[in-house]
Amino acid sequence: MLWRCCSLSHRIFDRFCVAELKSLQTSGRLTDFACNINAMLLLRRCSGLTSFGPLVPLRPRASVAAGWCAVRLLGGNSKDQRWENAGHGLSWRRALAGLLAGTGAVLAYGLNHHKAERADAVSIPVTAQNSQFPVFSQEEVTKHRTLQDGIWVTFNGGVYDITEFVAMHPGGDKILLAAGGALEPFWALYAVHNQEHVLEILSEYKVGELRAEDQKKQQSATSSDPYSSDPVRHPALRVNSLKPFNAEPPPEILSDSYVTPSAIFFKRNHLPVPQVDPASYELQVDGLPGGGLKLSLEDLKSRFPKHTVTATLQCAGNRRSEMNTVKQVKGLNWGISAISNGVWAGARLRDVLLAAGYGPDAARWARHVQFEGLDKDVTGTTYGASIPIHKAVSEEGDVLLAYEMNGEPLPADHGFPVRVVVPGTVGARNVKWLSKITVSAEESGSHWQQNDYKGFSPTTDWDTVDFKSAPAIQELPVQSAITVPAQGASVPRADEEVTVKGYAWSGGGREVVRVDVSLDGGKTWQVARLRSGDSGETLEPPPPPGRAWAWKLWELTAPLPPDARQLEIVCKAVDNSYNMQPDTVAPIWNLRGVLSNAWHRVKVTISDDEQ
Amino acid sequence: MLWRCCSLSHRIFDRFCVAELKSLQTSGRLTDFACNINAMLLLRRCSGLTSFGPLVPLRPRASVAAGWCAVRLLGGNSKDQRWENAGHGLSWRRALAGLLAGTGAVLAYGLNHHKAERADAVSIPVTAQNSQFPVFSQEEVTKHRTLQDGIWVTFNGGVYDITEFVAMHPGGDKILLAAGGALEPFWALYAVHNQEHVLEILSEYKVGELRAEDQKKQQSATSSDPYSSDPVRHPALRVNSLKPFNAEPPPEILSDSYVTPSAIFFKRNHLPVPQVDPASYELQVDGLPGGGLKLSLEDLKSRFPKHTVTATLQCAGNRRSEMNTVKQVKGLNWGISAISNGVWAGARLRDVLLAAGYGPDAARWARHVQFEGLDKDVTGTTYGASIPIHKAVSEEGDVLLAYEMNGEPLPADHGFPVRVVVPGTVGARNVKWLSKITVSAEESGSHWQQNDYKGFSPTTDWDTVDFKSAPAIQELPVQSAITVPAQGASVPRADEEVTVKGYAWSGGGREVVRVDVSLDGGKTWQVARLRSGDSGETLEPPPPPGRAWAWKLWELTAPLPPDARQLEIVCKAVDNSYNMQPDTVAPIWNLRGVLSNAWHRVKVTISDDEQ
Repeated sequence: MLWRCCSLSHRIFDRFCVAELKSLQTSGRLTDFACNINAMLLLRRCSGLTSFGPLVPLRPRASVAAGWCAVRLLGGNSKDQRWENAGHGLSWRRALAGLLAGTGAVLAYGLNHHKAERADAVSIPVTAQNSQFPVFSQEEVTKHRTLQDGIWVTFNGGVYDITEFVAMHPGGDKILLAAGGALEPFWALYAVHNQEHVLEILSEYKVGELRAEDQKKQQSATSSDPYSSDPVRHPALRVNSLKPFNAEPPPEILSDSYVTPSAIFFKRNHLPVPQVDPASYELQVDGLPGGGLKLSLEDLKSRFPKHTVTATLQCAGNRRSEMNTVKQVKGLNWGISAISNGVWAGARLRDVLLAAGYGPDAARWARHVQFEGLDKDVTGTTYGASIPIHKAVSEEGDVLLAYEMNGEPLPADHGFPVRVVVPGTVGARNVKWLSKITVSAEESGSHWQQNDYKGFSPTTDWDTVDFKSAPAIQELPVQSAITVPAQGASVPRADEEVTVKGYAWSGGGREVVRVDVSLDGGKTWQVARLRSGDSGETLEPPPPPGRAWAWKLWELTAPLPPDARQLEIVCKAVDNSYNMQPDTVAPIWNLRGVLSNAWHRVKVTISDDEQ
Repeated sequence: MLWRCCSLSHRIFDRFCVAELKSLQTSGRLTDFACNINAMLLLRRCSGLTSFGPLVPLRPRASVAAGWCAVRLLGGNSKDQRWENAGHGLSWRRALAGLLAGTGAVLAYGLNHHKAERADAVSIPVTAQNSQFPVFSQEEVTKHRTLQDGIWVTFNGGVYDITEFVAMHPGGDKILLAAGGALEPFWALYAVHNQEHVLEILSEYKVGELRAEDQKKQQSATSSDPYSSDPVRHPALRVNSLKPFNAEPPPEILSDSYVTPSAIFFKRNHLPVPQVDPASYELQVDGLPGGGLKLSLEDLKSRFPKHTVTATLQCAGNRRSEMNTVKQVKGLNWGISAISNGVWAGARLRDVLLAAGYGPDAARWARHVQFEGLDKDVTGTTYGASIPIHKAVSEEGDVLLAYEMNGEPLPADHGFPVRVVVPGTVGARNVKWLSKITVSAEESGSHWQQNDYKGFSPTTDWDTVDFKSAPAIQELPVQSAITVPAQGASVPRADEEVTVKGYAWSGGGREVVRVDVSLDGGKTWQVARLRSGDSGETLEPPPPPGRAWAWKLWELTAPLPPDARQLEIVCKAVDNSYNMQPDTVAPIWNLRGVLSNAWHRVKVTISDDEQ
């Protein structure tokens, strides 16, 4: 089967979306646009489908689009309603929309939102007058900010002594940031807390009520939503978390484009998207002799050669949902699409470091390059991460301070105006909204470098984990997944063959050299065809060894086994160090659900239905 | 459990062996020495064993040593008998020795040798007088050297037209080297041919007899054994092939020393060991502007800084025997010990290439560095391989032109006087007896680079394989194996715990960061303790990222599960790119049996026997 030739190239599609979204953002026509976009996606799929027969494989897609339309029809009509809120409303509306769509797609979407709403709604009702607890002033609460004095916090008018809980906090000692103050600003940042069981735990530590006048002060301080200035997002994205925004494209759209359109490129934000004025933007380079370097966006563009790299970024938590089927892990429930491929352009980090004074002297003590983002929580703590110095300064490392993505300025969700792109390295080190670079003898001390994004044995749990015992994830292991057909799809026997598609990538610049596909759960294998570009494009020459930063898309069309009633389709990739994916999920399960790269499995049924 | 402190350090052991062997080689006391060495090994084990109880685990080791002694007692007393021949003799002698030892260890050894003897003995009896075939002169045979004229060869007085067989030859078109001449010199190099079924295949192609006078000429030409000058080897080695010599140490000895003593370091020779006079040795560096460079051994030592690297070498075929249990593959039947760790010292390849004129000009076109060995077959074809230029010239590549191994001049089996050591890269590229270095735009054209040492899908067989479709193996994938206890060992329940030991390593300088061990076939896991040196040694600081060239040894002592009657012990390693080993062998099976790195599994029984 030939690769499908889309009538709309991803770039046109991309620009169209961006322009339309911008104009719609102020016109209040967003819900109509959602329906249009989905209708358009539907149209693309209708015109392109050749191998699955006309009806069956369309059902899930048609239902998603129809579901969106149903949401529009039944949903609110507020002028400023944003995409993420399209699913917010009375639950009967969503249920009806789901029924109209005829599948569970919308219901599933609604269910996620419903959960979030319930979490928003729950609270511990407090009336200081009737309370059996003593009343404390904010001043008194503020005195309890150390383990010695006790750690007190307030929440919704209550005062809590959480000293004993600190050691048990799943998020580590980050909880101490709230010591002596209100929890609300932190929970607004980390919506994971807005769940009933979290509030139940908190209620065990209640020691008093906050004085009424201090409650009022807090309410006025915390009323603003730090996420209110987040950008508008593409409605095709599957949202894993609204605040911070985390979302991935549907798999079958992901493998449609070798370079992922920015609008559907997976989004992984840890904090609210910062608003940055490009005119006053300043990048600070620290840690080198000579007092540091400050660069404007214009400096970055004019003083250093522009370097372009096609590189795939993958979240450490990609495919986490498969680990959840083994045993619940902590983290966003990513499907298989927390990975995307972009064309990045910017200054080389190496060039900037050399300009800032990096040389043989610094090479003697420098071991890491730390990055800080402009995205910050209410305490001013910014997102941070680091990479090894060798990767940063190597001519072959191709690390960019990127100001362009897919030929356009970086979108807000992807780090406008400047982000780091560390090809071959886990997404978490590709710091967005970059504010500061520090050459250092030490790794970044950030939570995300030290106490997150590390791999552990399946035997390690939250009681036994020692984050110091494992290295911070940098290069990722070999990965592949099946994007088409979808889990549970139906393949008409009359088609006589099935086409399987997917992506494959490996970290550290290791090139994927083969993808094996099985239709029988891994008993027998066939070799898929790999590609490094879209149909009709002039392919670039293969990358030098160790610099294969971009994924490969792959495809296999194979005859349907004559007697099979269902297929267990499996894929596994091999990189040029001949690393292979592990067979099963359970032995690589880890408490954070990262590094989920077992063989990907999709079950489909073969339908005898002539329709 | 503390790491055992050996009374004899490996270096003393090593030097002792080398010195003793040298003196014994001429004195005829080798068989006594064999017994002494084994008694010594036995003594070391006796004094060190603490965790398995006194009797049961000693049995196999005691039997091996006793078996060797039995071989000495019953074996030949020829003055020049060499180690490899210690097992040669009448089969009743070995059987009796096996009985005396009380186990099958010696029998198994004998069986391997017996096979080789049978192969030596088989032949096709020929009497030209009585033959129904026409008689041809050598001159006539010599005319048939192309596919157009037909490919004729002679063997043991017969003439064979193998034109149709050429395409089917498992060794590829190397068979054409014998075209128009005798097969014997080639089969002397590749003893794999000395098997009955090979001769049966050959007999199908017989077309005539060779003229008697030409037979006589051939006999005088082929009577010399190209392996007769091979060095004496350590008797503890398990021999996979005598000619060329390929052997590995017993696993339980392998994990006794962090740095493997040279005498038991696995040996992987493709051809006879060349005899090199260090005084006249010359290394040629070609391909760069300026007419090339010639270096004597003294030049190499005096003109370039001496650089020392501890690096593990592994044969691509390590653990091939496990693939054979799935389906027969082609290649030496390696166990788990075709891997060893050495301390190498020499000039850096980078320094030599810079001295030879490598610079920005060459960087524009150079892509590979090719190596040629002095080991050659009868046609003069030498062993060859290449590595990517980046690895060769990078400061972090640590590629050596090594003249020392473990503090001594390179032993003959390991490439005396100079070999390439390419840390992190498959053994096959670590060319021994180095004669020539060529900077090139192309990979080595050698058989071993182009048509061997590549990985394929399990679905690929010798009818469908296209060697051009896969990259030459360079960096190897993550690997680990269990050295103790041995497969089928018995663990006394009275010990209440079991100690498991092994090695772990990954290619490309990726450091092993964790080894998981399971006692229940992979259902539950425990984390093993890693070490990077021997007990009592001052450990070196951890290597910089990407330069972890040496393996880790690991150990886990765990309680015996109360009700278990047997254990299926499994290990799997994780490197710092978080690559993991695949769970099972079948999905990574490939026709050459390379890259065998699935979880290693060892089954042991728990014995209630109080003795």
